Amino acid sequence: MEIYLDNSATTKPCKEAADKIMYALENIYGNPSSLHRPGFEAEKEVTHARKAVAKLLGAEADEIIFTSGGTEANNTAVFGAALARQKTGSRIVTTAIEHSSVYESCMELQRRGFDVVFLEPQGGNISEEQLSDAIDENTILVSVMMVNNETGVRLPVDKIAKIIKKNNAPALFHCDAVQAFGKIPVRPSKIGADLVTVSAHKIHGPKGTGALYVRKGTFIRPLLYGGEQQRKLRPGTEAVPLICGFGAAVQNIGSMSENMNRIKELHSYAEEKLAAIEGVEINSPSDALPYILNISAVGVRSETMMHFLESREIYVSSGSACAKGKKSHVLTAMGLDPSRIDSALRISFSKYSEKSDVDTLAACLQEGMDKLVHSK
Amino acid sequence: MEIYLDNSATTKPCKEAADKIMYALENIYGNPSSLHRPGFEAEKEVTHARKAVAKLLGAEADEIIFTSGGTEANNTAVFGAALARQKTGSRIVTTAIEHSSVYESCMELQRRGFDVVFLEPQGGNISEEQLSDAIDENTILVSVMMVNNETGVRLPVDKIAKIIKKNNAPALFHCDAVQAFGKIPVRPSKIGADLVTVSAHKIHGPKGTGALYVRKGTFIRPLLYGGEQQRKLRPGTEAVPLICGFGAAVQNIGSMSENMNRIKELHSYAEEKLAAIEGVEINSPSDALPYILNISAVGVRSETMMHFLESREIYVSSGSACAKGKKSHVLTAMGLDPSRIDSALRISFSKYSEKSDVDTLAACLQEGMDKLVHSK
Repeated sequence: MEIYLDNSATTKPCKEAADKIMYALENIYGNPSSLHRPGFEAEKEVTHARKAVAKLLGAEADEIIFTSGGTEANNTAVFGAALARQKTGSRIVTTAIEHSSVYESCMELQRRGFDVVFLEPQGGNISEEQLSDAIDENTILVSVMMVNNETGVRLPVDKIAKIIKKNNAPALFHCDAVQAFGKIPVRPSKIGADLVTVSAHKIHGPKGTGALYVRKGTFIRPLLYGGEQQRKLRPGTEAVPLICGFGAAVQNIGSMSENMNRIKELHSYAEEKLAAIEGVEINSPSDALPYILNISAVGVRSETMMHFLESREIYVSSGSACAKGKKSHVLTAMGLDPSRIDSALRISFSKYSEKSDVDTLAACLQEGMDKLVHSK
Repeated sequence: MEIYLDNSATTKPCKEAADKIMYALENIYGNPSSLHRPGFEAEKEVTHARKAVAKLLGAEADEIIFTSGGTEANNTAVFGAALARQKTGSRIVTTAIEHSSVYESCMELQRRGFDVVFLEPQGGNISEEQLSDAIDENTILVSVMMVNNETGVRLPVDKIAKIIKKNNAPALFHCDAVQAFGKIPVRPSKIGADLVTVSAHKIHGPKGTGALYVRKGTFIRPLLYGGEQQRKLRPGTEAVPLICGFGAAVQNIGSMSENMNRIKELHSYAEEKLAAIEGVEINSPSDALPYILNISAVGVRSETMMHFLESREIYVSSGSACAKGKKSHVLTAMGLDPSRIDSALRISFSKYSEKSDVDTLAACLQEGMDKLVHSK
């Protein structure tokens, strides 16, 4: 029986999402832009999903732009905001621990001449003071994630809108909420975000779709040009079946607080069991999102331990899947000791994770440490 | 029994594609970038689909970049090529009858200072001479579609590589082959194209995925920045289920020449039956791709006739779905009489279309003309 504990990389689609996708493939085949019944039906289903995503964000349906996923949504936000405001200023404030789709987009803007500030975490997180020092009257974009994808660290995103205002920055505020969405309340209007990224495949929806919240009245430059779809902000025939599946996954989340209580308990249990293993260190801070638990099995390289666990049908990761095994820029920026970076493992839960999964993981990790540390 | 004759807008996913998508949703849930078994399995399925698409293009698997569809592939090609070569020259040669995702991308490049030439069709098509006159030593990109999506006109794409060479143009050649792919042979190496766009949902695959052929050794600037996926040319978690469905749809095309023979016959039959109706004019030239038949029901506005046919459960379109009812830039550029543009209808077949569909269409169109022309 396999144990999948890599839910921050991707989740297994839930039955509700898969069924809805199948229904759409078989029945909702029109092009949402077509002016006839099959087209209208497709449009109706897209709108239904749009409302579901909007509702969870406490937003209006027309503030939701469907994209091909988190990467496209983050690129649309970062380039779209920076290029729309480049006559107003040139500074972009972000962090050194963003997901690569924000980080690399900002690196590209830096190459194009923007003044990009990558804030380095101090004491494991970004402080309000750092943000306040960096955001100035020349700042046109602040992009800070809500929850870090490798450690679960929760960034102080609720402070940013106030700092932007206080410092008279002509900045849009983008928040990559991919790891938070569906797990904790993500309310753009409450945190004062103009742009918020979410993704379907991290919440038991399908890979290949996500959304960007664009606050009403916010102008950004589109990344794609073409047809009239999605107010020309994101042209292209909508991925109807996936979007339907995204909507179904959102509607299947259940109670976020009940899920959270379960995961908190699971996390504490895992932390206790794993920390008891000699050589295992906990990297995630205690106030991190409990869905993610980053540890180091010091003395065994991440890949080696991952493969050992894989041989026991336990699947975790060494960091972000998108980095394909490259050294984590996040843990490096977190200031972790190299021996802990090289041996880091990310355990990420989903609402379907069980206590028995943790028991098996702990037993196999212990076995792995016994075998692999001593064999060196 | 509904009759769907709007297959150039989108097609109904075939059973093989739908089944494969369902299989992937239920079984292949890993992230292709994850370094464990579920990840490797997902990567394997993506590679399988990549090979299927490559094979139909006579290309290598690593020349295929999966995108979220034709619009993204066209944007990646146009912006990617223009921005990669902007130090070499500033001219872009395209046509006035491209799909909006090429046309609007080129318009945006024109706004950014590129010298964009939009060739207007003369006598219903673009000539070799026009291309040769426009493509000069300053030309960095030629983007010409293989088959026009509104009329089926086949453009002289097999002449372009030679002209680029003859005229010493430092140009990449991009061909939007969305309407041709799976219907006639599309061989990038044969026509000398560096970049070729194809889409899944026009060949009974799912909406939300497509691909860009990028000839080996061709450098273009990526549109998206992020993870290590697809050689960083198109980062972001691959839309595994859709890509699997795309592969299945490609493998389900069957014999393109046998399909073509059937469609040729169907097209001739339709042309004859429809042209016999008083007021109906044929807009598609006789050498157009037989999958598309553009007509005008002169005296009745396109939308009015579309809705009449819709009431009989017959679905056609007034032009490109992506234009959502806006006046066709293609038919305008084709130099059609305004009375014919306003009454244009696009009938588009799929390999599943039947002769009886045409009979019903002809009878209802006749009925529509009788009722609607006289009621004016």
